Amino acid sequence: MKTKILAELRRASGYVSGQALCEEFHVSRTAIWKAINTLKKEGYEIEAVQNKGYRLVRVPEILSQKELESIRQTKWLASEYYYLDETESTNMVAKKLAEEGAAHGTVVVAGRQTAGKGRRGRVWETPPKTSISMTYVLKPDMMPGNASMLTLVMAMAVVRGIESLTGLEAKIKWPNDVVINGKKVCGILTEMSAQMDYINHIVVGTGINVLNEEFSDELKDKATSIYLETGKSVQRAGLIEAINRQFEHYYEIFMETQDMSVLAKEYNTLLVNLGGQVRVEGGKEPYVGNSRGITQRGELIVDTWEARRLVSSGEVSVRGVYGYV
Amino acid sequence: MKTKILAELRRASGYVSGQALCEEFHVSRTAIWKAINTLKKEGYEIEAVQNKGYRLVRVPEILSQKELESIRQTKWLASEYYYLDETESTNMVAKKLAEEGAAHGTVVVAGRQTAGKGRRGRVWETPPKTSISMTYVLKPDMMPGNASMLTLVMAMAVVRGIESLTGLEAKIKWPNDVVINGKKVCGILTEMSAQMDYINHIVVGTGINVLNEEFSDELKDKATSIYLETGKSVQRAGLIEAINRQFEHYYEIFMETQDMSVLAKEYNTLLVNLGGQVRVEGGKEPYVGNSRGITQRGELIVDTWEARRLVSSGEVSVRGVYGYV
Repeated sequence: MKTKILAELRRASGYVSGQALCEEFHVSRTAIWKAINTLKKEGYEIEAVQNKGYRLVRVPEILSQKELESIRQTKWLASEYYYLDETESTNMVAKKLAEEGAAHGTVVVAGRQTAGKGRRGRVWETPPKTSISMTYVLKPDMMPGNASMLTLVMAMAVVRGIESLTGLEAKIKWPNDVVINGKKVCGILTEMSAQMDYINHIVVGTGINVLNEEFSDELKDKATSIYLETGKSVQRAGLIEAINRQFEHYYEIFMETQDMSVLAKEYNTLLVNLGGQVRVEGGKEPYVGNSRGITQRGELIVDTWEARRLVSSGEVSVRGVYGYV
Repeated sequence: MKTKILAELRRASGYVSGQALCEEFHVSRTAIWKAINTLKKEGYEIEAVQNKGYRLVRVPEILSQKELESIRQTKWLASEYYYLDETESTNMVAKKLAEEGAAHGTVVVAGRQTAGKGRRGRVWETPPKTSISMTYVLKPDMMPGNASMLTLVMAMAVVRGIESLTGLEAKIKWPNDVVINGKKVCGILTEMSAQMDYINHIVVGTGINVLNEEFSDELKDKATSIYLETGKSVQRAGLIEAINRQFEHYYEIFMETQDMSVLAKEYNTLLVNLGGQVRVEGGKEPYVGNSRGITQRGELIVDTWEARRLVSSGEVSVRGVYGYV
């Protein structure tokens, strides 16, 4: 009921009368009063004025099942939230839930990851109460070969989500990072369980630096956070909701063709280094060329001085020739 | 120790003296005598002759951890066996073990599957004590797009394994069945957990009808067992070992090129319906053509009257125009 009261207070522009809440939830005034008090204890600032009712004055930076559910306005994404204060890795949890039958659109969120994974098993650090660690469980009817493009769809959602909430201009570093002012703010790790011609499930995991006030000496030239870029504290739950809405939108477009043919044009406008020089490493020989954006299969087009190359998401890293990105 | 004694008795052409066993395992005569007695109780016929020692006369149809380990002669495959009397699905167990860090080459075997899965979640029936339900855990350094070819490699191993133990001519029904005299004897289900460019693990699951004496009316025209085809009882553990040796051989060849380029020629000689008419169903429109074998990427080449088509392992079923296969 607390979640519902919270959602009700959020929806209201002004005061919500205690009587109205009693009637809506079929409980006593005392029950409402108790619920409001609990919310206050959790940090929600709620004003109570006689003959007017309750008003939500300020929402604290709280990441919780209740907070996430009370602001959810997506159609199908996050129809189930699975929130954990702390876990090894939200991708691991999501894979387990998916195996056990979790529905398409289930979202796992953790307050802290203790063993977050980047690509190829690399560690992804997440200090407590600073980051978003979130994984979507998706079960699309699609050929397994198309799944990796969901990393690109997610990157678009993160960029647009950050933009809508903060006005910051984030950019995509193909294929699975998001950067602000040349520094990494987000990494995406998509994993899939599949049969030859059938996807059991996909998990799309996202780590975002939100409230970090500093980074270690080793990282500070390469990493940033929303807080460091804006100087303002951002509600992680609100950012999750903003990203989820964007993902829902882009995912539905993606699924119509099951490739990037419709989204490529917009994607390319969000791409860092578009037109600039990039260095492709990790293949047989590294090479340098100009980034020309993605194909409808999500490959990066790189023009070298001798030929056009298509970089698929093989174990390569693409970086700008100048700076870290 | 029982497993080791059993392996010792197997290796010996004649009698193994009790004294030799005592010395080998550093235990007393009584300990050896007790172990032998336990083996006898489990059904192993062991002859004991004074001044000569022990001799393994006959091995019962036993599927157990001990039996599997005592006959294992593979190099790396089945370096770990994980035997269960009964489980829902060996693929499910294998995926769980793989997530938890099980080594490349781990083999899960079950005496009975209660919820075995075929492709796209279809049920695969396995009555108790008749079938082989086995899943390999593999962790190759390979691009995810190549993984589905392991189904073809496994099919070759099953055909050659059956042949080496029974002399039966089994054939492959592309992509994931093995048939004898036109009836299905084995199904293979390969599943993968992968990142964009990195395989976390692959599980290759195999179900084989071995000792079934009959099938339901619904199945009897489509399914058969090794027993029904030979009239003889075959040791399931022995067949598993035979198949594992074959798989190890073919897998190593496959991994050199990570495709079917070396194996395609031999594969095609094992293909049912080669040169004959097949019907390809499940795509936009079904069509009929002549099967010309596989490409080096494992696709089936089908010549229709108007064009050559390559069937990838999309959700299609290929069957002979006459009969069930």
